[in-house]
Amino acid sequence: MLEQMRKPELDNIIKFLRMSGRLKRILRSGWVEVGVDCPESVADHTFRTAVLCMIFSDLEDLDGLKMIRMALLHDLPETIVGDLTPSEKTGEALEKEDAAMKQVLSLLPKGLRQRYLKLWLEYGEHKTKEAKAVRQLEKLEMALQAREYEEAQPSLRGLERFIESADKVITSPEIRKLFCSVLDSDR
Amino acid sequence: MLEQMRKPELDNIIKFLRMSGRLKRILRSGWVEVGVDCPESVADHTFRTAVLCMIFSDLEDLDGLKMIRMALLHDLPETIVGDLTPSEKTGEALEKEDAAMKQVLSLLPKGLRQRYLKLWLEYGEHKTKEAKAVRQLEKLEMALQAREYEEAQPSLRGLERFIESADKVITSPEIRKLFCSVLDSDR
Repeated sequence: MLEQMRKPELDNIIKFLRMSGRLKRILRSGWVEVGVDCPESVADHTFRTAVLCMIFSDLEDLDGLKMIRMALLHDLPETIVGDLTPSEKTGEALEKEDAAMKQVLSLLPKGLRQRYLKLWLEYGEHKTKEAKAVRQLEKLEMALQAREYEEAQPSLRGLERFIESADKVITSPEIRKLFCSVLDSDR
Repeated sequence: MLEQMRKPELDNIIKFLRMSGRLKRILRSGWVEVGVDCPESVADHTFRTAVLCMIFSDLEDLDGLKMIRMALLHDLPETIVGDLTPSEKTGEALEKEDAAMKQVLSLLPKGLRQRYLKLWLEYGEHKTKEAKAVRQLEKLEMALQAREYEEAQPSLRGLERFIESADKVITSPEIRKLFCSVLDSDR
């Protein structure tokens, strides 16, 4: 398909990649809020979430490609609206996120745009097995990162709420087993 | 599979995730060498390489899951040996990388360990369509990042060699079209 593509379409793909690249420079706002030294970028978080999706889908025989695509795509709206904390995700902010996702994906050829938008909507609805797993694995990644920051900066306060937030979201028995192992691992 | 897993195996998966998480803190040595301000982490680079693999495999009808897995796995040895520049990748260093990969993957259940090692070896041989594409897309990602750093820090010297290095490796006509668009995009 790239062979037949004209320059404006190719340039738009590069623009899309430039947009995605912004996630390397956006710091995860939750960690900034509690005062973590050199907090990770959104892209850092997405990387390990994608690794988790790969491992989990392979262990549990789920659709790995769908899950990893959801993981790679799910934070793209942040390239426009920034990284919102859960308390900032009101109705209006969610609408803005939705519009931002459509804007970012509009840079891609039609077929991909539609495919990725569908995946993102599926992720947001949290209904299919894969969408549920990605959401919970994303929280597991956050909980593990909270533990790691706690170990690196023992004087830091306020990290426990990230663990509590993960605890509420992680309902899958399989993912809870991993979550318990995260909680135990620094004892 | 996780349901039947015992604690030591679960703990090893978490250890594997902790190892992967080191890539968030390892800065890409090439950028450090030329003096980029706040250079990206290896995980940042892997994130956008994985996004590129997703888009390219969808456009060119390649095995996307294989390509994204290769992208997510390919830098894991760096969690032990650090990020080596191409000039540091001598025979001995490559052997150390190989041993490091086996050590990291040994934390995963046998089936996954074997599957991921096979993919990593396939990537290293650069023979299959997917392995060739991932390697060239990784260089494309680097070239785009070099351009972005050039734009952000116009006084920086030495970034051109990353573009030249990508130019040598990118032989696929389809990926070259994207590469040309990267080169044009800041003119």
